[in-house]
Amino acid sequence: MLLCDVGNTNIHFYKEGMTWTKPSSIKNISSIEEEFYYICVNENLKEKISSIEFAIDLEPHFNLDTIYQGLGVDRIAACSAIENGIIVDAGSAITVDIMANGIHLGGYIMPGLLALQESFKNISSRLDIRINPNVDFDIIPQNSLEAVSYGVVKPIVMMIEETKKDKKIYFTGGDGKFFAKFFKDAIYDSSLIFKGMLKAVKDMRIEG
Amino acid sequence: MLLCDVGNTNIHFYKEGMTWTKPSSIKNISSIEEEFYYICVNENLKEKISSIEFAIDLEPHFNLDTIYQGLGVDRIAACSAIENGIIVDAGSAITVDIMANGIHLGGYIMPGLLALQESFKNISSRLDIRINPNVDFDIIPQNSLEAVSYGVVKPIVMMIEETKKDKKIYFTGGDGKFFAKFFKDAIYDSSLIFKGMLKAVKDMRIEG
Repeated sequence: MLLCDVGNTNIHFYKEGMTWTKPSSIKNISSIEEEFYYICVNENLKEKISSIEFAIDLEPHFNLDTIYQGLGVDRIAACSAIENGIIVDAGSAITVDIMANGIHLGGYIMPGLLALQESFKNISSRLDIRINPNVDFDIIPQNSLEAVSYGVVKPIVMMIEETKKDKKIYFTGGDGKFFAKFFKDAIYDSSLIFKGMLKAVKDMRIEG
Repeated sequence: MLLCDVGNTNIHFYKEGMTWTKPSSIKNISSIEEEFYYICVNENLKEKISSIEFAIDLEPHFNLDTIYQGLGVDRIAACSAIENGIIVDAGSAITVDIMANGIHLGGYIMPGLLALQESFKNISSRLDIRINPNVDFDIIPQNSLEAVSYGVVKPIVMMIEETKKDKKIYFTGGDGKFFAKFFKDAIYDSSLIFKGMLKAVKDMRIEG
């Protein structure tokens, strides 16, 4: 069974425990020659994918208990994989969601590391700096590289800490491994979304 | 005496206690028909302004005690006005600097509110949301507007709180008033940079 998670930047594929990634383009989807289940948050590709013969949209088959309006299907999928804890998906954006006893309690969104770096570039050419993700949080910055890195990485980590408190925490997404290292009991799972998708496929087959 | 603080977005003017603002363009500087002191962080305008007959660059006349490399002259000016405390200049970028006994201890930079909002727009059309700056920090967001607003405003306030601790805090810049309201003992001073500039002019005249 082939699963596709279509994001704004990349498409993530899963088959029999294997995962791989390709850039988000319709070519990388339309070339698939077998039946596949997909979720898609990329507004530019959504309609095109839905018209592909082999494509089965998993979005209507999730049953996440939440009052959140307009929760992205990637967040729904990741949350579906977890009963209790914080789920941090750190990619183009960083989403933070809270699950308790299988119920989604809400969540929030921050711009991702790359987006923040880009936003500095747009403010001033002097701030067009490649951030140092390993900046020391305990030393007050003494130059632009440190100042920008500190101002990007520390607020994100502080926010996640504040949400986490004594809860379990799961990281996924391109920068998930990076942020996981700030939390000694963190679980990094690059396949969290696929686990939620597999669950939805199973539920769908039982119901069907 | 006319003072000009040339930023990346706006030029701020000061004369005899009055302040006013115009968009950052060379036209709004070259039309001045009297002697003026200026500071400029706008790389596109720097050279053009320096060739104006009436323009006196104040940058070489500050004497801020700091080991920070490449501190922007607007931050130098604002810090020069304060002996002890935190200085937050919330504009296109948000700079946070620490002064103790007239010595600059360092500081950091975060993207401003507008820059963060723009960065979401670039990630996904679904996140092209005008943030609600009055979002409640104590309620877990339940929709995209709340989620994005919470993820933008709360990290900035938390970072400033963490830097402040029991120190005095001064806010300036376009969004300074907005952020000041989160701190009950905050001092909002839209003229902080001009106060530093006036001090530099005074020192310059004494030395001269």
